[in-house]
Amino acid sequence: MSESPVRRAVHAYFMQRAIELAGNGWYTTRPNPRVGCVLVRDETVIGEGWHEKAGEDHAEKAALADVDRRGGNARGATAYVTLEPCSHTGRTAPCVDALIQAGVARVVIGARDPNPLVDGRGIARLEEAGIDVVTDVVADRCEALNNGFNQRMRQQRPWVRVKLAMTLDGRTAAPDGSSQWITGEGARNDVHRLRAESGAVMVGRGTLLSDDPSLNVRLPGEWPQPLRAVLDSQLEITPQARLLALPGETLIYTASGDKARIAQLEQAGAQVVPIGVNGAGLDLSAVLADLAAREINDVLVEAGATLAGALASAGLVDEYVVYIAPKLLGDRGRGLLQLPHIQNIADAKALVIDSIEPCGQDWRITARPVAN
Amino acid sequence: MSESPVRRAVHAYFMQRAIELAGNGWYTTRPNPRVGCVLVRDETVIGEGWHEKAGEDHAEKAALADVDRRGGNARGATAYVTLEPCSHTGRTAPCVDALIQAGVARVVIGARDPNPLVDGRGIARLEEAGIDVVTDVVADRCEALNNGFNQRMRQQRPWVRVKLAMTLDGRTAAPDGSSQWITGEGARNDVHRLRAESGAVMVGRGTLLSDDPSLNVRLPGEWPQPLRAVLDSQLEITPQARLLALPGETLIYTASGDKARIAQLEQAGAQVVPIGVNGAGLDLSAVLADLAAREINDVLVEAGATLAGALASAGLVDEYVVYIAPKLLGDRGRGLLQLPHIQNIADAKALVIDSIEPCGQDWRITARPVAN
Repeated sequence: MSESPVRRAVHAYFMQRAIELAGNGWYTTRPNPRVGCVLVRDETVIGEGWHEKAGEDHAEKAALADVDRRGGNARGATAYVTLEPCSHTGRTAPCVDALIQAGVARVVIGARDPNPLVDGRGIARLEEAGIDVVTDVVADRCEALNNGFNQRMRQQRPWVRVKLAMTLDGRTAAPDGSSQWITGEGARNDVHRLRAESGAVMVGRGTLLSDDPSLNVRLPGEWPQPLRAVLDSQLEITPQARLLALPGETLIYTASGDKARIAQLEQAGAQVVPIGVNGAGLDLSAVLADLAAREINDVLVEAGATLAGALASAGLVDEYVVYIAPKLLGDRGRGLLQLPHIQNIADAKALVIDSIEPCGQDWRITARPVAN
Repeated sequence: MSESPVRRAVHAYFMQRAIELAGNGWYTTRPNPRVGCVLVRDETVIGEGWHEKAGEDHAEKAALADVDRRGGNARGATAYVTLEPCSHTGRTAPCVDALIQAGVARVVIGARDPNPLVDGRGIARLEEAGIDVVTDVVADRCEALNNGFNQRMRQQRPWVRVKLAMTLDGRTAAPDGSSQWITGEGARNDVHRLRAESGAVMVGRGTLLSDDPSLNVRLPGEWPQPLRAVLDSQLEITPQARLLALPGETLIYTASGDKARIAQLEQAGAQVVPIGVNGAGLDLSAVLADLAAREINDVLVEAGATLAGALASAGLVDEYVVYIAPKLLGDRGRGLLQLPHIQNIADAKALVIDSIEPCGQDWRITARPVAN
């Protein structure tokens, strides 16, 4: 589509609003993508909607319903949608049909839906119905609404975000292992928000045994709780582990065939998932594929140096969230990541730093591997 | 002095200009303080000056000369000076006399001069002469022009700034010791500017032997070169060390009495300074006192983990400048600081982070110890 710069700017303006609306479902749409929609006539908004929760209206239908509620009519209007409208019948009827029936004249789309059931079919259906379709408007931000969903659709693995907390000299714990609390309340609350936006939180054996973590969201109000994924090749977790007693699902990935222990753990509420071994530990790609098959878009890894390093070495990290506390612990403190294959500076893993922001008394760095 | 808020705001306005002028001497005034001066009549600047170099005009005299040059007259004017005017005869005659002779009606002062030869005497002399004196205007920024000079005057030791360069996971070198280059050109140029503003650059034996550093300012144009201070308790440096061949002064602090080696090194251009031992290494307080006695205001420490840690443990670090490269080296890489006394998280050294800024492809964090 070649459109005038002014027209592109108008499209971008309303798409920004659609992105904002998509954010209303930030914590609740999973496993579905976050989507926002704005219906516009004569450069005036006549209806707005977003997807709130799987099984409920998609953003397009919510926006059309909003037009009705306001006593309006979508005929001849322009629909701005952050994601290509769906063309298949899932839990709800296809959105393209709803848009066609409503008689919209134009659909402006942010990002293409990588879901193989859609992936261009939505666009094709709209065009076949004689609707003018504009694509790739503020596409990068629309894409970024759904890093996890997109990756699950394209690569059958979730978006993996590794959270780390360290001192300014890169230490996660003192020489005696003590680490409570390296970071302050601001950073800890931020981690609870990361948990809330993740379909699963993952820990390794080391963190499990040393910290006995709960891994749940502990913030005022109601928050969705992530699935808990424990990597425990030898099945060393005990049925008394704190996270087993909490509401919600716990998966224990293991290479152990210890039937008695498995029965005990299943009795305690866990689901034990057998996974093959790859080198020194569990096959991490297989674990991630299993989580993707369970419709997990985003995994938050709250790991120690072993699991974080294993994921980094395997090229399975999509994003690092590193909290830096204004403290020094010295070089006998615990390190951030075990990367046993690195010998020379030329082997260093290159990152791109996306942001460095204050977070309470600490600072939060987000970074991505350069090639992943 | 109780003055109206409007008057204080006017004073602050002109003091900001005086601070800006003081900055013109940023790299050149040492061992003298950086000082700027503005002469104002009827809220109009009639003369400006700054201290450029020891032995040349102080800021007040430079500003009075500027008034003359502009064909004006300072009689009845207000002088804004970032630092209390001197009352003693040093390399030049006292500035208070010059201000009195010029007939200024008021002197507005930023920071008090901690030089024991001044330290309130300048203010007293002005007041005795019937001049209205206002003090503490934008005092914190005026103080910060001269952290090094102030500390040398008050504590007979220089301001100690420890520069460190590390990966995001807190590593200064790969397991095999390779570290060129962790940071990029932007950070390296920034270090050259830090060197240029420091009276001395300090390294320990480890860095000396492994890197054979030059420690000089290598930037386009003419830059003052810092004195080079080497801490080498056993006198392991060879006369072939690169920094001995460079123009400028090199001090080697040692506990060794090896006369032949000392003669060799002095032949190669170094000055060897005997220093006592304190615990595992040289008496660092004595080294700093010696540097202060040589009129060094600011020391830039470009040290490895041993010396940086020893300074931190001894409470002798005033500021950390940490360059963070967007890379990971893993926990077998070299650490930032040896702090052997820290066992528990409660022992962590607390810092205040003053700034985090992008620096080329890297980031620069400046931080200070909470209590020092």
